[in-house]
Amino acid sequence: MANPFFKNHGPLKVSEIIKFLNININSSYNDEEVYDIKDLVSSNKNNITFFHSKKYKDVAKKTKASYCLTTDILKTELPKSCLALVVENVLVSTSKITSIFYPDSINDSFDETAKLINETHFKDKVSFGKNVLIGNNVSIGNNCKIGHNTIIEKNVIIGDDCYIGSNNIIRNTLVKNNVKILDNCIIGKHGFGFFPINDKNLRYPHVGIVIIEDNCEIGCSATIDRGSMSNTIIGKNAYLDNQIHIAHNVQIGENCIIAGQVGIAGSSQIGNSVKIGGQAGISGHLKIGNNVEIGGGSGVIKNIPDNTKVMGYPAKNIRKFLRDKKWFIKQL
Amino acid sequence: MANPFFKNHGPLKVSEIIKFLNININSSYNDEEVYDIKDLVSSNKNNITFFHSKKYKDVAKKTKASYCLTTDILKTELPKSCLALVVENVLVSTSKITSIFYPDSINDSFDETAKLINETHFKDKVSFGKNVLIGNNVSIGNNCKIGHNTIIEKNVIIGDDCYIGSNNIIRNTLVKNNVKILDNCIIGKHGFGFFPINDKNLRYPHVGIVIIEDNCEIGCSATIDRGSMSNTIIGKNAYLDNQIHIAHNVQIGENCIIAGQVGIAGSSQIGNSVKIGGQAGISGHLKIGNNVEIGGGSGVIKNIPDNTKVMGYPAKNIRKFLRDKKWFIKQL
Amino acid sequence: MANPFFKNHGPLKVSEIIKFLNININSSYNDEEVYDIKDLVSSNKNNITFFHSKKYKDVAKKTKASYCLTTDILKTELPKSCLALVVENVLVSTSKITSIFYPDSINDSFDETAKLINETHFKDKVSFGKNVLIGNNVSIGNNCKIGHNTIIEKNVIIGDDCYIGSNNIIRNTLVKNNVKILDNCIIGKHGFGFFPINDKNLRYPHVGIVIIEDNCEIGCSATIDRGSMSNTIIGKNAYLDNQIHIAHNVQIGENCIIAGQVGIAGSSQIGNSVKIGGQAGISGHLKIGNNVEIGGGSGVIKNIPDNTKVMGYPAKNIRKFLRDKKWFIKQL
Repeated sequence: MANPFFKNHGPLKVSEIIKFLNININSSYNDEEVYDIKDLVSSNKNNITFFHSKKYKDVAKKTKASYCLTTDILKTELPKSCLALVVENVLVSTSKITSIFYPDSINDSFDETAKLINETHFKDKVSFGKNVLIGNNVSIGNNCKIGHNTIIEKNVIIGDDCYIGSNNIIRNTLVKNNVKILDNCIIGKHGFGFFPINDKNLRYPHVGIVIIEDNCEIGCSATIDRGSMSNTIIGKNAYLDNQIHIAHNVQIGENCIIAGQVGIAGSSQIGNSVKIGGQAGISGHLKIGNNVEIGGGSGVIKNIPDNTKVMGYPAKNIRKFLRDKKWFIKQL
Repeated sequence: MANPFFKNHGPLKVSEIIKFLNININSSYNDEEVYDIKDLVSSNKNNITFFHSKKYKDVAKKTKASYCLTTDILKTELPKSCLALVVENVLVSTSKITSIFYPDSINDSFDETAKLINETHFKDKVSFGKNVLIGNNVSIGNNCKIGHNTIIEKNVIIGDDCYIGSNNIIRNTLVKNNVKILDNCIIGKHGFGFFPINDKNLRYPHVGIVIIEDNCEIGCSATIDRGSMSNTIIGKNAYLDNQIHIAHNVQIGENCIIAGQVGIAGSSQIGNSVKIGGQAGISGHLKIGNNVEIGGGSGVIKNIPDNTKVMGYPAKNIRKFLRDKKWFIKQL
Repeated sequence: MANPFFKNHGPLKVSEIIKFLNININSSYNDEEVYDIKDLVSSNKNNITFFHSKKYKDVAKKTKASYCLTTDILKTELPKSCLALVVENVLVSTSKITSIFYPDSINDSFDETAKLINETHFKDKVSFGKNVLIGNNVSIGNNCKIGHNTIIEKNVIIGDDCYIGSNNIIRNTLVKNNVKILDNCIIGKHGFGFFPINDKNLRYPHVGIVIIEDNCEIGCSATIDRGSMSNTIIGKNAYLDNQIHIAHNVQIGENCIIAGQVGIAGSSQIGNSVKIGGQAGISGHLKIGNNVEIGGGSGVIKNIPDNTKVMGYPAKNIRKFLRDKKWFIKQL
């Protein structure tokens, strides 16, 4: 959860947290300080954590956090070293506390630190077009090119030998070496994650980033959202065609080939050497194995094991698909 | 039909209209003036209207317009106060006359009045990025931000507490309060409406606008077209993910959640609290009820009643869909 | 293959080619020069060609090229006037040799020659917005308009009476007369064509261009890739809605109407007067006849004969589709 992209505005006093959550608790901890919010596993004794589902019972028992947002029923699973803060909706409260620690991670805003590249020290290092904007604290490796009108927002890290085309916006992103990002992409904005509330939804924080590994090519007009708690990752040597949408927390393996207009919903994991045909869609929270081939236009709504070819909506084994559609041979 | 976005170049003399339509009519009205073109219901005695289908017989009988583009068969339905102008193709003629009243509504052009925001009075009112362009007669409320390279074209109205990201083009649009428009959106261009004619199609006018209600969030790379005769409306607290296409005259209700790459074709109406999964498509001129859920990748080609969950192509009741696809459980 | 967009860096000595391919051949041709690489049919005696599949046996027999990249098995089909250069992978070798002749056709880069239009002679000829960039050797006809932030890269040719909106990038493209390109389009970048190789794919050259014929309208946020060996062509009076993706080598006939979010994969050919509904996808290397209508959301994976209406995935005759889905009538 800690990363250079989102400044931690902690520590917070326990009394502040309790007051903010509007809960009643008599706590002798009131003056103690909490330094960060983390998940059950990675928390240490200076942290607050959250526990919202029985699924996580086993890790909850061992958490090292001193404070935990949870429910009246779940709180009994926590160790004695951890004070339960019982709230009505654990995820909403987690979101609120995270947003106090990381206020910049909720509402994205354009980078006000961005200035023309010729006013920065990159003017002698990078080959660049007109009207290129660079934010504070950006890092760019050797032998890089950046096209016209592209905006590299604050803290972005770009490796060596990268080509970033024109009209791109890149924020909260780590670009490794020899990566090509063509034109008109928006990379690193927050994902489509929020709590639906009538009249006014509540956005939750996105403290993850986007990581684009070595040798990738990202086609034109892609949108790649950054992660909420974990990162969005595009694996080594993945090639993406035009108009692709990659939602938050998606992880794509190495050597994948993804054709035009594909969409991958939040938190899905794609294995290595996966080929995805044009306009295919992959639902959220799925696991697609290695060497999977997904036919163009397919809609994948289930996990797919390694070495499988699927097609259709819902996507199924390609031989089965063609057999079911045998009428197709004679139909036109 | 009257709105601040398209200047009415009327009034026109009846003789001019007759001459332009290239029709033969002996009319003592020749010197009278017509102030606007409107539909059968909203016309008053200074207007010309149009009547192209028996469907509208009942409202035609009561129209207050003094002139009406129509056919030889339909003209008998008009009241005596209304002079029928019989033409070969009513819609083409309507389009032509509308384009004389509203010449700016046919062929969109970039806003030649746009200038850098620091040369306008907004420079002290709005928080803005580099290279922001603002057209004539734009209105922007309090506490707004506009990102880099964004173009707000002439006459656009933006409420309070709005965030408009970078690389957007907004025209012919009314943005209410607390709206977020992320990056790279094109909002308010004319829709995909024209008369197909070999060698050279004929565009018809789009005098509608786009209205984005309070608390909406529009994701990156959206295209939202303005209406032709009516307006395109995004209802209160609607949240749209990335790469969404909303065609002309679409009306979306309140509290809707629309995932990435969804497309909604012209003139469809979406109820309140509708959830639409990624890549789903909705055909034109449909009515989707309240609280409908549409599965990702679905293709909706029929009206959907309230409180229904649908999926598939064509989209059908979700339980039915899964039963029909029961082979799916064992197929991989 | 010869066009003004990609500079031929030939001639090459035969010895250079042999050395580059790392093959063993005793050739008395070593000092001779090769001027270009072309296909079997269009080659002349100063060219090198390639022959990778039995399918092309008949044309191989008659090629006029003096040199040919081929396999040990296929080489016997070549005429005596043509020296076989036997390589392991004909297409990879072809790609490599093409990239020596046309180095600019592999890795696209932003146009470093582009400058503000007011610094060019177009400032008095064209009506233009802010921040418009024009590359070297661009040609623009009479009565044209170019919107804000648009980039017209080097060598692009634009005819008379064209409207190019805002935020577009146009490269390697020939735009005929009376064409409208709305906003945010990327036209003429290389296609999604490469040899997949673990860890680091190998891009092959794209020496084709994009040709947009008279009276076309290209909607917002389109991506139209240029061809690899042949050209990508948008036929006369074709109208494309928003967010359309046209892959490399696609050829679209006259008077076509293509709705929003459609994707057409590489090398497919679309006839005249074809109508394609929103979000439909067409696989690669297909032939779609004249007057075909393809329903919205369809996935076309077979050739479609003239005058056919198809729908579904895989797309089939529309009456058949609705009969198969007869349950649809009663299902909701």
